[in-house]
Amino acid sequence: MFTASNELLDALRQQLGPDQILTDADSLTHYGRDWTRFAEPAPSAIVLPKTIEQVQHIVAVARRFEAPLVPSGGRTGLSGGAVAAAGELVVAMDRMNTLSDVNLTERTLCCGPGVITEQIQQRAGDAGLHYPVDFASSGSSQIGGNIATNAGGIQVIRYGMTREWIAGLKVVTGTGELLDLNRGLVKNNTGLDLRHLMIGSEGILGLIVEATVRLCTPPRNPQVIVLGLPDMESIMQVLAAFQSEIDLLAYEFFSELALQKVVQQQGLQRPFNEVTPYYALLEFEHLGEDTEAQILMIVERCMESGWVADAVMSQSVAQARALWRLREDISETLSHWTPYKNDISTTVAKVPGFLAAVEEIVDRHYPDLEVVWYGHIGDGNLHLNILKPESVPMDEFQARCKTVSAEIFTEIAAQGGSISAEHGVGLLKRDFLRYSRSEAEIGLMRSIKAAFDPDNIMNPGKVFPAQPSAE
Amino acid sequence: MFTASNELLDALRQQLGPDQILTDADSLTHYGRDWTRFAEPAPSAIVLPKTIEQVQHIVAVARRFEAPLVPSGGRTGLSGGAVAAAGELVVAMDRMNTLSDVNLTERTLCCGPGVITEQIQQRAGDAGLHYPVDFASSGSSQIGGNIATNAGGIQVIRYGMTREWIAGLKVVTGTGELLDLNRGLVKNNTGLDLRHLMIGSEGILGLIVEATVRLCTPPRNPQVIVLGLPDMESIMQVLAAFQSEIDLLAYEFFSELALQKVVQQQGLQRPFNEVTPYYALLEFEHLGEDTEAQILMIVERCMESGWVADAVMSQSVAQARALWRLREDISETLSHWTPYKNDISTTVAKVPGFLAAVEEIVDRHYPDLEVVWYGHIGDGNLHLNILKPESVPMDEFQARCKTVSAEIFTEIAAQGGSISAEHGVGLLKRDFLRYSRSEAEIGLMRSIKAAFDPDNIMNPGKVFPAQPSAE
Repeated sequence: MFTASNELLDALRQQLGPDQILTDADSLTHYGRDWTRFAEPAPSAIVLPKTIEQVQHIVAVARRFEAPLVPSGGRTGLSGGAVAAAGELVVAMDRMNTLSDVNLTERTLCCGPGVITEQIQQRAGDAGLHYPVDFASSGSSQIGGNIATNAGGIQVIRYGMTREWIAGLKVVTGTGELLDLNRGLVKNNTGLDLRHLMIGSEGILGLIVEATVRLCTPPRNPQVIVLGLPDMESIMQVLAAFQSEIDLLAYEFFSELALQKVVQQQGLQRPFNEVTPYYALLEFEHLGEDTEAQILMIVERCMESGWVADAVMSQSVAQARALWRLREDISETLSHWTPYKNDISTTVAKVPGFLAAVEEIVDRHYPDLEVVWYGHIGDGNLHLNILKPESVPMDEFQARCKTVSAEIFTEIAAQGGSISAEHGVGLLKRDFLRYSRSEAEIGLMRSIKAAFDPDNIMNPGKVFPAQPSAE
Repeated sequence: MFTASNELLDALRQQLGPDQILTDADSLTHYGRDWTRFAEPAPSAIVLPKTIEQVQHIVAVARRFEAPLVPSGGRTGLSGGAVAAAGELVVAMDRMNTLSDVNLTERTLCCGPGVITEQIQQRAGDAGLHYPVDFASSGSSQIGGNIATNAGGIQVIRYGMTREWIAGLKVVTGTGELLDLNRGLVKNNTGLDLRHLMIGSEGILGLIVEATVRLCTPPRNPQVIVLGLPDMESIMQVLAAFQSEIDLLAYEFFSELALQKVVQQQGLQRPFNEVTPYYALLEFEHLGEDTEAQILMIVERCMESGWVADAVMSQSVAQARALWRLREDISETLSHWTPYKNDISTTVAKVPGFLAAVEEIVDRHYPDLEVVWYGHIGDGNLHLNILKPESVPMDEFQARCKTVSAEIFTEIAAQGGSISAEHGVGLLKRDFLRYSRSEAEIGLMRSIKAAFDPDNIMNPGKVFPAQPSAE
């Protein structure tokens, strides 16, 4: 546990105003945690830099006093990467939030790390362009955090992760050096790409202080279709049937139990009367009558093959939005049952086998627990949610979930999958990293961290324990 | 200068057959150089592993004997990254060339590093899919080399560089460890992305021994339009006019001098009678009559604005191919004049100013030298070619070009550009790396190399000099 001394705070005050250093209890709690709730926030102080020079000053002071720093964006993370529970200084980027106009020639914009993701989407849209990384928390997450965790979301099948959209990155490393990485270039083959090393690094190498974000042409007239499916194999067949003919914007899935919960809690309509074990939601560009005919033909073929039991297609933007709610409202709906969440992936073809294996594990140990599945099937990304029965106390529920965790991760490792598809490692999964990364890889990550951050002040203890021996 | 001892060769023979170790003069010359011709090849021996285990054995032997290794693919590189001029062991990947069937669910295929790029394109095409990284040397370059140099090419504006298409990578590091990076997953946020660190690393971290390559839907009915343009500013305006309405597959440019040379040498037809200082070649998907009308309308607007003087659009696949030759044959055409080549980039909007500044530099020093420009304007990537006049001896020509090099690189640095847009650093540009990367970045690259390759046996002296003090 670190404690910020008065001397340290005085040193910070050399370049930061009184409104930029917060130590009141409310601020410490507010800035000390993300959307996870498993650790009590306990930072020493919150600093709110306004300029890159102030960030460099904060790092210099932190080095001098060996103070751990925790970077902080919108704190919508689900792995505890932004949790400060050991007296750290939280470096909150809220005030580094300048947002440039869109550069139409480059199709980029430039922004501070504290800019809200949704603001970037809006600024792009106002210029007739599109920032395609989108997810439920985009109204409160910050772009710096999106980059640090390589955020994914609902259209990865078409547009990829945040990684694909970062043309330039300014970073202050653990030595206080300012790196200006790639500078918005499309082509730049001059040695190791440190930009990609920073993306998804969860703050352990340095602080992101500016980003150049790439934009694209907006999708034309997106429409949605929801399908009822008899089994997981059908989900794969349907995916293949569509992908062989059109480029999908999204291919999501959810189970009947997920649909029941979301319809009940949110007061939504079921998409159709037919009840099936699984549902798929597809989004695509509706380019005219040809598209509609093509889609209907694919659906018909899938029905003839027995892969689809029922289907509904949106006829308007409003209907498309309503259908999306069936999928997008699931996460919020399930929070009612304080679920044990897991965000895992395999390659797409392995999904049905993996899902069956995990269901078998949970059933074997705890047949009374409800398992809700949903996720981005086109990316091989499953969100596994185990719901807490009301009758079971939280402690006991947590203990049960931990028991199955190890078995699930063993299954992931056997399948060559990922223990964290899009949420990152943070604190929550650091002790399980070896299920997805080899000892040699973890060793290399440690060496790279030591090069960027020799004093180990950058988000120490996240991704892997601070000391190798602790693993 | 290293020399392979008999003891070393004996150690290699423990796992490699006699046909896998070549030391005859022809082989040493053949495998010791790439498409550059500035260094005499002088490797000690050529090794041709067939399996990952044999690669690991080679690395173990190299560590024991402190032998430098040079990875070798199709050797079509233009920066000397695969040159072995100091007694190195060349590790040629020709026999690690297994190529899997296409996995239609994942839209990937798996291959050894020695597979020829064109074979991947063909295998994808046979399955109704597309590998979109394409360039003049794709018939002889190998995928391992493409990955190690992050190859670009003619459709980067639409599909990006090789980097975007690598879903998994097996690598043997300088310690002989086998890393299995990302394993074909779409989403995998589990710490630092070492796969992206390997892509474009030019062999200094390890040897690529297997790749999982992502494929996409082929472009539909690609058509080509060639435009005659009065100046560079118009090239930018035309790019913006098209990009605001359609997604381009390519946006290339070449100068009148380039056109003259290619028409003359290759016996091609000029696209139209109008002579203009610059030409742009655009490729797009022709999706029906609507597209044609849309394109004609944009061209008309550009003509009214004075940005376009003349235009021709392909009416068939054969015509599209013929128009492409005007651009694609330039490099081969110019080789007749043993040009001084530079492959540089800036952000797209800065291209006109940068081009003017470089022309001013060359004119000031050597008004008698012919400068030929062409390149991928949609990516900000210019290929600058200074032609050797027949009357000037090679030595003198080289000396003149070196004089202007430093000034050109200074201009690149001032514009925040790249001294190597797609060809990599290798030997040819290693002494100029600091014009595109800061001292802090180069220091971090060195530390990362030391972590992957503590004995400095992996392509030593490439990208940066082996000893920091030598810089």
